Amino acid sequence: MPNISIITIGDELLIGQVIDTNSAWMAQQLNAAGLAVLRRVAVGDNKNSIINALEQEQEQADAILITGGLGPTADDITKPLLCEYFGGKMVPNDAALENVKRLFEQIFKRPVTPVNIKQAEVPDCCTVIQNKLGTAPGMIFEKNNTIFVSMPGVPHEMQGMMEQDVIPLLQKRFGNSYIVHRTLVTFGIGESNLSDMIQPFETALPANIKLAYLPNFGMVRLRLTSSGTDKEKLDAAMHEQFSLLKKEVKDYLLTDEDEPMEKIVGKLLLKQNKTLGTAESCTGGYIAQLITSMPGSSAYFKGSVVSYSNEVKETLLKVKETTLQQYGAVSEETVSEMAAGALDALKTDYALAVSGIMGPGGGSAEKPVGTVWIAAANKERMVTQKLHFRFGRLRNIQLTSVNALNLLRKLIIE
Amino acid sequence: MPNISIITIGDELLIGQVIDTNSAWMAQQLNAAGLAVLRRVAVGDNKNSIINALEQEQEQADAILITGGLGPTADDITKPLLCEYFGGKMVPNDAALENVKRLFEQIFKRPVTPVNIKQAEVPDCCTVIQNKLGTAPGMIFEKNNTIFVSMPGVPHEMQGMMEQDVIPLLQKRFGNSYIVHRTLVTFGIGESNLSDMIQPFETALPANIKLAYLPNFGMVRLRLTSSGTDKEKLDAAMHEQFSLLKKEVKDYLLTDEDEPMEKIVGKLLLKQNKTLGTAESCTGGYIAQLITSMPGSSAYFKGSVVSYSNEVKETLLKVKETTLQQYGAVSEETVSEMAAGALDALKTDYALAVSGIMGPGGGSAEKPVGTVWIAAANKERMVTQKLHFRFGRLRNIQLTSVNALNLLRKLIIE
Repeated sequence: MPNISIITIGDELLIGQVIDTNSAWMAQQLNAAGLAVLRRVAVGDNKNSIINALEQEQEQADAILITGGLGPTADDITKPLLCEYFGGKMVPNDAALENVKRLFEQIFKRPVTPVNIKQAEVPDCCTVIQNKLGTAPGMIFEKNNTIFVSMPGVPHEMQGMMEQDVIPLLQKRFGNSYIVHRTLVTFGIGESNLSDMIQPFETALPANIKLAYLPNFGMVRLRLTSSGTDKEKLDAAMHEQFSLLKKEVKDYLLTDEDEPMEKIVGKLLLKQNKTLGTAESCTGGYIAQLITSMPGSSAYFKGSVVSYSNEVKETLLKVKETTLQQYGAVSEETVSEMAAGALDALKTDYALAVSGIMGPGGGSAEKPVGTVWIAAANKERMVTQKLHFRFGRLRNIQLTSVNALNLLRKLIIE
Repeated sequence: MPNISIITIGDELLIGQVIDTNSAWMAQQLNAAGLAVLRRVAVGDNKNSIINALEQEQEQADAILITGGLGPTADDITKPLLCEYFGGKMVPNDAALENVKRLFEQIFKRPVTPVNIKQAEVPDCCTVIQNKLGTAPGMIFEKNNTIFVSMPGVPHEMQGMMEQDVIPLLQKRFGNSYIVHRTLVTFGIGESNLSDMIQPFETALPANIKLAYLPNFGMVRLRLTSSGTDKEKLDAAMHEQFSLLKKEVKDYLLTDEDEPMEKIVGKLLLKQNKTLGTAESCTGGYIAQLITSMPGSSAYFKGSVVSYSNEVKETLLKVKETTLQQYGAVSEETVSEMAAGALDALKTDYALAVSGIMGPGGGSAEKPVGTVWIAAANKERMVTQKLHFRFGRLRNIQLTSVNALNLLRKLIIE
């Protein structure tokens, strides 16, 4: 199996101004094409660092995918540097120039500037990858039997090139193997207890199948991974072990796919032809945006009342003023009235309501930061739960959302 | 200035199952402490890969920060491997064991298992970093004058160790230099035009100050970076150049800090003592959660009506049925009525409304995927804008949100 390295270039990655999402996307696509990533390296916009990375990765990899540093501004140094490294000289590329002109004329609707025209120049020692979504062309070089591919760091531009050119090229060159991942998700059991529970299974796993534990948000993802050249044999062995694993964890099994809670709940609602609305205080719309991040969610999601103020809780969700006064906004009583109010206001089959203190401010001795009440309801049933989290604001919001969706899930499948 | 490498360990990083957010956080903290990150490397849970990475980074770095692979399960191999690499043997650590017992008793509320007790064992050749937030202790090793720090991959556990132990240690050892970043954000001008506009400034920049361009969501962040040992001199030089840069781009200047649009809008509302509500269709709560991701947002944000269905647009936002029939949900007429309805229903000074087609489904010849109408209003004024995006669902949602917040910003400062 060939070794692939990913090199991402950009000072912004080394000072933490930008989170690298490109590498994860690239790795997913490569795996799906049967290609494994051996290493990922990030370096700054610095000549020595880049050349050093190229040389080091070349010793270990059959293909090196490089992103970043191809923009039109002076801090983008990747292209001239690669030209020098591979001993070429810069020449204009007609197709790339046509593309730049088209983008400025039809999409950006402003005049082309000299720096953009310069973007259509490429080293004469590379094969050009045309960039339909942006102005920087991609480049393919080869040296000592290693393939080097340079792409822009702009995610959708890189993605277009990967799908149309790079993956097919790598598959043609290296593609006679397969990588299979199967992931299931458990809820309600800690990683270490899970590990104890499935130890006999883990010990008996064939040597070519790897088991990984990925805990997050109170869930644990269990992943089986294997690779090989005989697709049928590989699939059969993975199917057998994955079926065994599902049986082992059946009391905690949330889903046998690698999918988030909002997708699981969405599929359940769609299957039962039911609708959902949310009433969100502390999550501020986070649950609604999770649900609507799924394409097709309009089939089951009607809307949300984000009642960040008590006034909105009263006017739109009909929470009683006396309830808010007597029990406070973060209470079982309030969150129950919010859920009932959402069922009524949004006219849905199910409603989910949350109210809590996410921090850093707003806590008290009685109700410290991290105190949350959640409620899920339909016309017949109302279930509530009190939660305590001990993290920062964003993580508290995320944990509240996942736990609320799980409470709803349990009510739906009851 | 010392060189720091970050090594993140985990197969999940190489198959794209997880996005690495740890490295960015670590880099930010290190920079703030005057420490620069030279390289970031991600490798799998594989002995050869890890040892190879340790050896390669050791040649280039004065300190190596390692995360991941310290969990209680069989796929976590970092600790025994480091023990072997540095020639130690595993011994129990009393303080770590006490911590494990405390966490299970007080937080997890379930019995300690043998694998967790084993987590309290450490190599006898390391200095232990106690982990107050989790079961895996951190470890500090030293070899050939290079410091190696191993921490868990769980973000809040790693963060606790960095803040309390690792940053102070590195500062004590290396800390006599400073790194200063100053970032401003422009809106409404492309990267290449901006580059042309400020070329004289860029050419005249002192050699020790670097300028970087970071375009995203129609904005361009311009960052000046410099480092040195004389804090006062450094600050003065950066202040001078940053002031010049601000003057150069004044017609497009959004903010002279590195802050997102939701923070800029929040600060404006707070300053003017005004309140905001949103009416969101296609963004499904994304704008509300952006706004409420800011601590203290309850001072100006009252809530949102996420009207994903037309029914909710009619019942809660009083959009007329005839408007929806005549012009459709994605129209200037509907989005204006949504904004007016939000002002009324949420009783706020300002309202922001969006309606569009985010894809992949739902488009038509007349209104293709990416068509969006946005409106911002107060009691006196209503401003609307039509947008066209050409990306995937998530990016269309993000772009809609940023553009809507910018329309609101312009109305507020009008």
